Amino acid sequence: MVVGSLAFVPPLRLQAANLLARASPRVLARRNLTSKPLDNSESTTWTARMSAVNKTAHAFDKTRLDALLNRRFFYAPAFEIYGGVAGLYDYGPPGSSLQANILAEWRRHFIVEESMLELDTTIMTPSPVFEASGHVARFADWMVKDTSNGEVLRADHLVKNVLEARLEGDREARGVAAQPVAPGPADKKKKKQVKSTAVKLEDTVAAEYESILAQLDNYSGPELGGLMRTHKITNPGSGEPVGEPQQFNLMFASSIGPTGQHPGFLRPETAQGHFLNFSRLLEFNNGRVPFASAQIGRTFRNEISPRAGLLRVREFTMAEIEHFVDPLDKTHPRFSEVADVELVLLDKYVQAAGQTTTRRMTVGAAVKEGVIANETLGYFVARIYAFLLRIGIDGKRLRFRQHMANEMAHYATDCWDAEIQNSVGGWTECVGCADRAAYDLTVHAAKTGHALIVRQALKEPVVEERAVAEWDKKALGKTFKADAGAVTSTVEALDEAGLMRLKGELAQGPAIIKSPDGKEFTLQPEVVTIERKTFKTSVREFTPNVIEPSFGVGRILYCLLEHSFWSREQDVERGVLSLPAVVAPTKVLIVPLSARAEFDPLVKEVSLRLRKAGVHARVDDSNTSIGKRYARNDELGTPFGVTLDFASVQNRTMTLRERDTMDQRIGSIDDVIATVTELVLGGIDWAEACQRLPAYDGVQAVD
Amino acid sequence: MVVGSLAFVPPLRLQAANLLARASPRVLARRNLTSKPLDNSESTTWTARMSAVNKTAHAFDKTRLDALLNRRFFYAPAFEIYGGVAGLYDYGPPGSSLQANILAEWRRHFIVEESMLELDTTIMTPSPVFEASGHVARFADWMVKDTSNGEVLRADHLVKNVLEARLEGDREARGVAAQPVAPGPADKKKKKQVKSTAVKLEDTVAAEYESILAQLDNYSGPELGGLMRTHKITNPGSGEPVGEPQQFNLMFASSIGPTGQHPGFLRPETAQGHFLNFSRLLEFNNGRVPFASAQIGRTFRNEISPRAGLLRVREFTMAEIEHFVDPLDKTHPRFSEVADVELVLLDKYVQAAGQTTTRRMTVGAAVKEGVIANETLGYFVARIYAFLLRIGIDGKRLRFRQHMANEMAHYATDCWDAEIQNSVGGWTECVGCADRAAYDLTVHAAKTGHALIVRQALKEPVVEERAVAEWDKKALGKTFKADAGAVTSTVEALDEAGLMRLKGELAQGPAIIKSPDGKEFTLQPEVVTIERKTFKTSVREFTPNVIEPSFGVGRILYCLLEHSFWSREQDVERGVLSLPAVVAPTKVLIVPLSARAEFDPLVKEVSLRLRKAGVHARVDDSNTSIGKRYARNDELGTPFGVTLDFASVQNRTMTLRERDTMDQRIGSIDDVIATVTELVLGGIDWAEACQRLPAYDGVQAVD
Repeated sequence: MVVGSLAFVPPLRLQAANLLARASPRVLARRNLTSKPLDNSESTTWTARMSAVNKTAHAFDKTRLDALLNRRFFYAPAFEIYGGVAGLYDYGPPGSSLQANILAEWRRHFIVEESMLELDTTIMTPSPVFEASGHVARFADWMVKDTSNGEVLRADHLVKNVLEARLEGDREARGVAAQPVAPGPADKKKKKQVKSTAVKLEDTVAAEYESILAQLDNYSGPELGGLMRTHKITNPGSGEPVGEPQQFNLMFASSIGPTGQHPGFLRPETAQGHFLNFSRLLEFNNGRVPFASAQIGRTFRNEISPRAGLLRVREFTMAEIEHFVDPLDKTHPRFSEVADVELVLLDKYVQAAGQTTTRRMTVGAAVKEGVIANETLGYFVARIYAFLLRIGIDGKRLRFRQHMANEMAHYATDCWDAEIQNSVGGWTECVGCADRAAYDLTVHAAKTGHALIVRQALKEPVVEERAVAEWDKKALGKTFKADAGAVTSTVEALDEAGLMRLKGELAQGPAIIKSPDGKEFTLQPEVVTIERKTFKTSVREFTPNVIEPSFGVGRILYCLLEHSFWSREQDVERGVLSLPAVVAPTKVLIVPLSARAEFDPLVKEVSLRLRKAGVHARVDDSNTSIGKRYARNDELGTPFGVTLDFASVQNRTMTLRERDTMDQRIGSIDDVIATVTELVLGGIDWAEACQRLPAYDGVQAVD
Repeated sequence: MVVGSLAFVPPLRLQAANLLARASPRVLARRNLTSKPLDNSESTTWTARMSAVNKTAHAFDKTRLDALLNRRFFYAPAFEIYGGVAGLYDYGPPGSSLQANILAEWRRHFIVEESMLELDTTIMTPSPVFEASGHVARFADWMVKDTSNGEVLRADHLVKNVLEARLEGDREARGVAAQPVAPGPADKKKKKQVKSTAVKLEDTVAAEYESILAQLDNYSGPELGGLMRTHKITNPGSGEPVGEPQQFNLMFASSIGPTGQHPGFLRPETAQGHFLNFSRLLEFNNGRVPFASAQIGRTFRNEISPRAGLLRVREFTMAEIEHFVDPLDKTHPRFSEVADVELVLLDKYVQAAGQTTTRRMTVGAAVKEGVIANETLGYFVARIYAFLLRIGIDGKRLRFRQHMANEMAHYATDCWDAEIQNSVGGWTECVGCADRAAYDLTVHAAKTGHALIVRQALKEPVVEERAVAEWDKKALGKTFKADAGAVTSTVEALDEAGLMRLKGELAQGPAIIKSPDGKEFTLQPEVVTIERKTFKTSVREFTPNVIEPSFGVGRILYCLLEHSFWSREQDVERGVLSLPAVVAPTKVLIVPLSARAEFDPLVKEVSLRLRKAGVHARVDDSNTSIGKRYARNDELGTPFGVTLDFASVQNRTMTLRERDTMDQRIGSIDDVIATVTELVLGGIDWAEACQRLPAYDGVQAVD
């Protein structure tokens, strides 16, 4: 299943079929089949973490992961006891903590590190805002309705699913093996949307289907309707025909206030809140650009028929940055810090040639060679990369894909998506990073009449000479009466050359001018004088451009869970989530041998000391073996565990266990607390911890 | 202006007029006039912070505070360039940070400290959920419409404002001085809603108005309509009459999915998300109660005509806890830790007697004497108190008011509001803390058929003997045919005594029973045998009760800003926000003497070292004097500043300035960083810092 674009790009110059700037499902689907993760021997956070365990790990099993996430309440369908609602999910305790930790790290990595201006703007938005931004007219998908049971389907998905099923049936009938599924640890054969039956197609028909699928994004709604009639595409669920495709706006509508006179929408992105507050933000930043605003918040999209878990939902958390920059200077002062970062890129030229071959390139080289449009965009792409690795995404299943010309709006300079590979959506857009030029500020300024610009004192005033028309107001009024306005605006609309031409004509006598609506006027030389004059400007005014990194937090979170999940050879039933400590819901599990009172004082002491050190710990004193308690917390991704037993009471020692290796060390309570604190806060790694604490080779204490 | 109740209490047994469990505006208004803040000599966070500065501070000036909050973009009307929408506000950088810091402290104080289970549930909610909870039918206010211009007004507010204006006009006409405004630093004479004119009223009319106002909350919508007709109450804005009061549901409505068949609402509280996930939460907690869930999230209320700044808004952040507890055991294991905390209480008996006299009482005594219903409720009231003081609320302007009987739903055991005094709303509910009994879980279980209960293994099985009916199925069917079901259910509905009576009758021959719908049946002794049998139960099932602390974050934030605001004698124009370091948006301001390159390395070094120490700092290298830069950051509440000048470059020294006293100390860069880090993280106070660092008495360096 293919997921849509995080950032809405009003597609002013696009064809109707591209009304939503979404990646072509077909292109992505083919990409999944042919592109292999690069054989990347570079040590990343993920590879470092997983290398110790991977050789004994079972292959990724989506069913087991789903069972774990559901059983341990990472997230679950919202309103489950009421039967649930598609595309709405609640996060339980571990899911909420994981999300909160990802967001805390995002805040540290972006807002604090770059001194961004944080915002918290409203979700409820009056209609005029989204009329100006283009969302009311164009933030829509095409849908069709089953004529008999009223079921609603997304038009492009219907065509895709039915034709793909027919092609697969054709291959079956011809005895051709199913196409191989893309390799890679996260890939599983996807569930088919529509069941195929082995029916052979005419060669020409099969070729036509292939051709339709290859350009699915280029069809308008009416064209999709035509395809359905021509190729007798019906609702596979009921077998009944569907009606004409209709546009369905993806914004949730509501009404503000008691009179119903103020239509409003729930925002489908946080971006407009940044743009509307631009002047206040600029003032807060002492009138200077560049600066960035940042916002984390809930957004809403009323998807037609969401069926991809957390990858396509109707309500989700976004984290968005709007970096406002001088259009004439898109260099970045910290670019040198990231220039050597190597990325996996899939550029637009490669895609336009029908290829999906990625290449490794440093950000510095990519900007220098014009692959990435400018330094600021390149800087953010590199920062996004660093963030995703830091929270635990597998670098081998992460690439940056450039939008093709027909995916971008005409004003956009460049756009790169961070795509993360996963078993549900293949290569899925999880972060968008676009140079949106001056579009957004321009449309809101035009609609409201508020100037959304930067005023910059010029070091050297600019002196220029240009022609101006000076009117004899009295003669003008007398000659043209009610048309006087039309006459002056016609002349003043002329460019420099036009004005000088008119001056020449007037030097010879009356001149004839033509207004935009075709009226002709005869100008007498005494009515207007055209002269070149000198103008001095000491302030430059400009609308800044916007570089927008836009994060879909739920998608990142889901991919992270997939990349972190595995099972031990010896315990296939229980999984392990190898989440890095920085995002793990709980950092340390405190395991007393039993719930007996004699361990209470130590449990309290260790809890309190970890809490004071800023390390989030939980006690598990439930009535089961220590091994089972550890296994249960491996499922929650808890990276470290400490055990308090009789030796602890007698000698004040404690064991420390590492989740991925199940390695156990022993030391004094003081030493173990100091070590685990440094492990959690990122000061040392496990290898260093092992040098501080001797291995624990005692028999596991049993109760 | 009076603000509504944070927590929705479905008022099952209340009169129609009390459909919304809101505090009586009239009661609150009178309370404002008569109650004085207690003369509290106890040292609280706030008094400790402000004692040094208050003697030179100017009286609170709401206009200046508003100007500061607007100018420095703490918050501003949302969609300002589109003309704004009443009740919707955006938070700018300092407001966002302040809110984020309040929430981080909330998370630490409640979730981490008490190991609560955090949740993140959806805002969009299908209608059946709010049908069950009672919101669809009853989460409403009465509104009236101006018959000529269509303006919509809240019915109770209209009656209140018009009658109060007439009474004031009467007093003016009689030459009676206006009633004194409540003293206290946060109180300003409020802007009148309706202008009064000096017209004398008949004595009986004036008395009637007083009586109406005293019981305003007791009128139903139709009764309010009657009052408007009887007393010729028109829209003061237009002078035109208004129509009949109509109920207006305060939930924002929308529709989920493309067909429009699934009506939904934006949640007006986060609570339902906790209740619906109860079974999953219970399982996560290994089946044991008590436990608490906690959630921070956006909520929505479509207020009829919001005009009280952040105190009454249409979209706001709530932080809610649902503590699930055994109804038979509401003790709290940590109660002893808070038993000695002294609170200012306004209990329901005092209020019912028409008084507003508060009293100081320890939580321990309040629970012991039955003023607060149980330990768990008392524990949370004390924890709420500690939280509010910790973030900087003035303890003298904080009290806990108990709901009166008619404010609470019948099932609720007890409810206390933390009210914070401020210039806009007087004593304003900012936190509600209610014992909601088993209501919420019960209604959702009844609607969905999912048991929302706790199953507890009993230590000793309960053995009981009770009478049961045993049927001869064959004889039963033969005798009663289609009525057999009615016969068995009629008998089985009998209580113990009824069954034993029937047993006695049957011993004597046929007995006549009567079904609930009045049918009579004759039972032959051979059809049924009634015997006493022994039953053994080893599992107890119960619906837990819920204690709900519910925080309106925006209200707390606004009150905190008022309590923190003052101006210096020598600079009335610029204000100071004496926010505690724990919530201040920026902790340390780094001020280089100028933006000259020679200070750059030091600025970078100090920034980086503070960041690594977890201290949020900002650099102000703008082109103005150090004094002005400090003053500008006093407005943002930045508690500490460090100055880097030529001495820093030569000797690696740095000065440290404290915001409230403007005291300056000097030390090595290392010492100042260590000291300010401890100041910010709460390890030491300013007095201790002064012992470490000598006073700086050098002349302020000027650039």
